[in-house]
Amino acid sequence: MSKRIAVILAGCGHLDGSEIRESVLTLLELDRNEVHYEIFAPDRNQHHVINHLTNKEAKATRNILTESARLARGQIQALSELKLANFDALIIPGGFGVAKNLADIAFKGKAGTVSDDFKELIIKFYLAKKPIGAICISPALVANILRDKNISVTLGMENELLAAFGANEIVCEKPDMVAVDLKNKIVSTPAYMLEGKLHKIQEGIASLVLKVLELC
Amino acid sequence: MSKRIAVILAGCGHLDGSEIRESVLTLLELDRNEVHYEIFAPDRNQHHVINHLTNKEAKATRNILTESARLARGQIQALSELKLANFDALIIPGGFGVAKNLADIAFKGKAGTVSDDFKELIIKFYLAKKPIGAICISPALVANILRDKNISVTLGMENELLAAFGANEIVCEKPDMVAVDLKNKIVSTPAYMLEGKLHKIQEGIASLVLKVLELC
Repeated sequence: MSKRIAVILAGCGHLDGSEIRESVLTLLELDRNEVHYEIFAPDRNQHHVINHLTNKEAKATRNILTESARLARGQIQALSELKLANFDALIIPGGFGVAKNLADIAFKGKAGTVSDDFKELIIKFYLAKKPIGAICISPALVANILRDKNISVTLGMENELLAAFGANEIVCEKPDMVAVDLKNKIVSTPAYMLEGKLHKIQEGIASLVLKVLELC
Repeated sequence: MSKRIAVILAGCGHLDGSEIRESVLTLLELDRNEVHYEIFAPDRNQHHVINHLTNKEAKATRNILTESARLARGQIQALSELKLANFDALIIPGGFGVAKNLADIAFKGKAGTVSDDFKELIIKFYLAKKPIGAICISPALVANILRDKNISVTLGMENELLAAFGANEIVCEKPDMVAVDLKNKIVSTPAYMLEGKLHKIQEGIASLVLKVLELC
């Protein structure tokens, strides 16, 4: 039976949702490896909408699930429908919106917290020893949630968030690198935390997906 | 000197803009081949906004350039800034929005026409013998514009539009296939015109990009 992976999105666009390219490249690798995957996003409004041309906040309200459906081509479910028993692993692409819509870490930094729905899922997968793949900024949320578990993750170069959340920081200087915490079954890759070439980010995400599948 | 490619987008989401995955995979291949590319989109409102979860029209107004900026991570210019002299080739990813925002073919079918700004660019690149790469539905627009040039393109399986526009239809049954019109320097691939696996669509787009670069 093929492995079953849940992918969690947080909108569509790196400034107010999931990073589009990281999300697509995650789906590409899952597809290439003939994995059964399903996509989920919270059915509530985004923290805000950012005009990606001007970087300014727009006067608009958008729903996280509805916008994530653009990336998913409509094949998406509410995060509340994600059941641990139906999946072998979890992958969370990055994007600043992950730290805005699934947490308030984008605004509060070290004092930030993670939204209850996402937090509960991460804890469930962790306790069930099912692997978690976290891309770009997402490892910060995982570290925040699992702060007493001594996990090892990367946010690319040095980043004060991980130490503040009690995680072991693994420095990945290049976007094709992955950090693997075998004991805790957490795999991370910096992606757009670094200013890398897209095909190097693709290599990092491909390695992350393969490692997550291996750990299942 | 590396080749210079212009990529034209039409929004962000396959039902009212550019197909996100096709757009990302196009950029991935350009990046992998160390090509200099720039991204353009018209600075005007989308025809409409579709909720990608329900497939229904939403009461909202979105600008094509602003939404395309999500895919481009802000690195995008208005289509009016695209100068023939600065580029060696043009690539147009697909998505139903291409036939809605750059044309009215999505609504009028065989009686449809293409917007003047996009039409003028295609004619300029064609007359300058600079290659055009058209993905998914985009070849229909190119055929509409170049209807007296006897071009050969694909929309995947049989499609009445191409014959109506006076083009030679090349059937590509699989998404990893490309149609190459050497004489007219037009390369096309079906992508999501077929219900294919994402990694097969990626192979088709990778082949299209390579062929476009060869023809430069």
